[in-house]
Amino acid sequence: MNISAIQQTFERIRSNQAFEFFVVSVIIASALLVGVKTYELAPTSRALLKWLDLLVTVIFLLEITIRFIAEENKRRFFHKGWNVFDTLVVMISLVPIDHSELVLVARLVRVFRVLRMISIVPELRMLLGSLIKALPQLGYVVLLMFIIFYIYAAIGATLFESINPILWGDIAISMLTLFRVMTFEDWTDVMYETMSVYPLSWIYYLSFIFFTAFAFLNMVIGIVVNVMDAENQKMVQARKQQEHEPTLETIQAQLLRVEKLLEVAGQSGTTNNRTKDT
Amino acid sequence: MNISAIQQTFERIRSNQAFEFFVVSVIIASALLVGVKTYELAPTSRALLKWLDLLVTVIFLLEITIRFIAEENKRRFFHKGWNVFDTLVVMISLVPIDHSELVLVARLVRVFRVLRMISIVPELRMLLGSLIKALPQLGYVVLLMFIIFYIYAAIGATLFESINPILWGDIAISMLTLFRVMTFEDWTDVMYETMSVYPLSWIYYLSFIFFTAFAFLNMVIGIVVNVMDAENQKMVQARKQQEHEPTLETIQAQLLRVEKLLEVAGQSGTTNNRTKDT
Amino acid sequence: MNISAIQQTFERIRSNQAFEFFVVSVIIASALLVGVKTYELAPTSRALLKWLDLLVTVIFLLEITIRFIAEENKRRFFHKGWNVFDTLVVMISLVPIDHSELVLVARLVRVFRVLRMISIVPELRMLLGSLIKALPQLGYVVLLMFIIFYIYAAIGATLFESINPILWGDIAISMLTLFRVMTFEDWTDVMYETMSVYPLSWIYYLSFIFFTAFAFLNMVIGIVVNVMDAENQKMVQARKQQEHEPTLETIQAQLLRVEKLLEVAGQSGTTNNRTKDT
Amino acid sequence: MNISAIQQTFERIRSNQAFEFFVVSVIIASALLVGVKTYELAPTSRALLKWLDLLVTVIFLLEITIRFIAEENKRRFFHKGWNVFDTLVVMISLVPIDHSELVLVARLVRVFRVLRMISIVPELRMLLGSLIKALPQLGYVVLLMFIIFYIYAAIGATLFESINPILWGDIAISMLTLFRVMTFEDWTDVMYETMSVYPLSWIYYLSFIFFTAFAFLNMVIGIVVNVMDAENQKMVQARKQQEHEPTLETIQAQLLRVEKLLEVAGQSGTTNNRTKDT
Repeated sequence: MNISAIQQTFERIRSNQAFEFFVVSVIIASALLVGVKTYELAPTSRALLKWLDLLVTVIFLLEITIRFIAEENKRRFFHKGWNVFDTLVVMISLVPIDHSELVLVARLVRVFRVLRMISIVPELRMLLGSLIKALPQLGYVVLLMFIIFYIYAAIGATLFESINPILWGDIAISMLTLFRVMTFEDWTDVMYETMSVYPLSWIYYLSFIFFTAFAFLNMVIGIVVNVMDAENQKMVQARKQQEHEPTLETIQAQLLRVEKLLEVAGQSGTTNNRTKDT
Repeated sequence: MNISAIQQTFERIRSNQAFEFFVVSVIIASALLVGVKTYELAPTSRALLKWLDLLVTVIFLLEITIRFIAEENKRRFFHKGWNVFDTLVVMISLVPIDHSELVLVARLVRVFRVLRMISIVPELRMLLGSLIKALPQLGYVVLLMFIIFYIYAAIGATLFESINPILWGDIAISMLTLFRVMTFEDWTDVMYETMSVYPLSWIYYLSFIFFTAFAFLNMVIGIVVNVMDAENQKMVQARKQQEHEPTLETIQAQLLRVEKLLEVAGQSGTTNNRTKDT
Repeated sequence: MNISAIQQTFERIRSNQAFEFFVVSVIIASALLVGVKTYELAPTSRALLKWLDLLVTVIFLLEITIRFIAEENKRRFFHKGWNVFDTLVVMISLVPIDHSELVLVARLVRVFRVLRMISIVPELRMLLGSLIKALPQLGYVVLLMFIIFYIYAAIGATLFESINPILWGDIAISMLTLFRVMTFEDWTDVMYETMSVYPLSWIYYLSFIFFTAFAFLNMVIGIVVNVMDAENQKMVQARKQQEHEPTLETIQAQLLRVEKLLEVAGQSGTTNNRTKDT
Repeated sequence: MNISAIQQTFERIRSNQAFEFFVVSVIIASALLVGVKTYELAPTSRALLKWLDLLVTVIFLLEITIRFIAEENKRRFFHKGWNVFDTLVVMISLVPIDHSELVLVARLVRVFRVLRMISIVPELRMLLGSLIKALPQLGYVVLLMFIIFYIYAAIGATLFESINPILWGDIAISMLTLFRVMTFEDWTDVMYETMSVYPLSWIYYLSFIFFTAFAFLNMVIGIVVNVMDAENQKMVQARKQQEHEPTLETIQAQLLRVEKLLEVAGQSGTTNNRTKDT
């Protein structure tokens, strides 16, 4: 049995429905383990959880090995982002952690195993892909919004620092406060505080809310326009391909041929007449 | 008078406008009874309410009996979800309750009688039906949102439990806290508390808000796309059926016939000419 | 000078641009008067305001009289809702009020004069009209939402009344509390209070939020569908009317005529040939 | 070397990619300077910042001079809004400020230099332009909203001033309070306070929320309709220009020519036949 045969055997295992179902079950089990660990547990159950956790790690290791062997071109395996992510998460889970301080980090790494849910379900992977694809289109609106935030934070940190350094201490903390204002979270408390010193500071808050709402509106319109463009193109494509309807161009070409025929017939008719006249 | 005749008589009663109007009136009355009972009342009015309540139950019982007898196929009666719901609510209302602790349960069952409003008005039934039909389309987005919530709740319960066990005690209560953060309800109070221990924990909250806002946006876009697809199909259908406009295909077929005629005429013309040349 | 001549003279006054401009100015002045009165003023300025107020009332009275005389058909004058509204507001302003308790009512009536802004600017009247026209379409969604509110309020008033009678005292006050929950206004305070008695009451709040969000979503989709239907119809209309483009039907009719001509020509051609053959 | 040659040399400098990149870098540096200054710094770094600030001012001055000389028509230079803005910001930065009270103003002026980011990046300039272009379309909705705010603020200031003068002191402060209510920011606190005096004042708040939500909805619909109109026009344009598809009109014209030819042929045919008959 040569290497190619082994690879094909493993490919058959990987494509097996039962295998896929089993892997999804183990991922769900690992997600539940992560959840259970946040509850207070008896030491015996905690020990059991540790063993289950190790079992999950081993199964994940086996699964990735199978998928790696099943891959025809070994180099291409790590070109897929999700494969790299899966391998990384499993590898870090393998590192033995004894030091008490790092236990927290180890537990957090195990949380990211839940993300394997996205890597294994194709529909979720597609959903995430389309979300990421939509990002660059919004790039300039995000930049505009950042500039609005930056300018207002600089003004806020300059004028209001002496009033409340916790909210307006520096430009970074001011941007956090402005994000809070944008979500309308107790924004009047922030405003009334500065209004007691600068009575006209409501202009600062209201103009900020209007500008961000405006930029946000622009973002929404941009998305709607994109969606509509995509829809219209889809409709045009569907009309052309599915219905196999002749275009006006083919009809025009047909008409031209008819005209040519008539002109020839007309000329032959006149020559016909002329010859008869002689 | 045989069974079929009785069934037809009852069907006539059920289809009667006056009967339908009467039933809707009784449902509204039962809804008002439910509302009135939440106010503090004199013992005499409370006794009166009890009798009115019993009257409503009896009328509902009669109405369902009429509808059951009016149904041609008795088995199909219980295949309709709303019939089962109506029967169930009325049946439970009939159970005599003396025990003081169960009085609360009995009152709650009577509240659900208000839902009969939906079962009796066809437009509301359609509205609810279309809402339920829209649910599965959003399935994967809801799953993605649940995964985001689960991962953040696991991280929150791991890191912040010692800071505030009321908000971050276990994964379930952390998910409730995150839902609160998503609705922007005093979310800065939650954030400032954890920021006093982990100064960088604002990344946790802001990234969570961005991810959920993003998933939500995707949901809205998905719905808009669905609505637009449905609209476009409706428009295409309307154009085809209502206007009875000839398609480009029929015109192409006509043109082909014209071309055929011209070619035949042309050939006969040339043969004509040829015969004359000889 | 007969009555018809007077009517025409007044119609010319009413249609005069300067007259319209003057009326709008007086309405704005009356709006400013309403605003100024909310500030604390010296007795002298308050006396001045009183005189200005009377002046505005007199001008309004004159304006309505002019518009009434200018109207050809006196009965139709009061068929227009805005005319009735204008007359009513001015009439009530005329009632002399000395009693101190009614002063507040008198001031409130003067506030409604600002609404004359809408009655005088055609664009605002159109905007309001289109808003009111959109209402009945949303009727059933509003009814569904009311039923959701009513059922949840009945449950809330039954279960939570003993916990906090201020928020859950009766069904009316419970509906107000639920409206507050729907706006996410300190809704967790309300929830945590009931969760201390019924730990599972978060189900009550979350399901309520989901149901109302769902009904709201349905409303938005309904509006979008309506807007799109209107847009599509507008587009179809525009295509037909503005471009004066020939329809496929006229082209089909033309082709039929061509076919007829060819068939006739073909027949005459063949008869021609046949005669020559002989 | 004459003036025109100098102008062309400077135009080449201005259009140079390296020059543009350098200017953007300096703008980013000036933005960072503004941010850094909000942190508490050692006196030495503060002195360094002052020199860097001066350097930025000098570079900006040089850049504007280059752009001014590069401009062919000097008058047209100041007709562009952004050029005027750039010049103004740099000029004010040049004014030497020693007085301690004006330091704050000087720092704020430097903040506005960050806006040069928008003036230099064409995409951001376009984005802002499209935002400003969308404003007048919403004019009447904004006016309607202002009237709603004004009337409710007048009523609020009249009825509730004695309850809480901080929130309802005069019409201006009442409008601010109503804006707060519109953002659902602790609006129940405001409502419960007035409900203790006027138990029915919830009608005031709920009707206000409904009216503003309604006006807002109208605004959103207006924007969607505008976007869709623009999209549809774009689609129609694209169909006409890109595909170079013949219109039905050209086909109709072609058919007319065919008909003419056939009629001529038919007539000549009949005359032909007639001559032969003789």
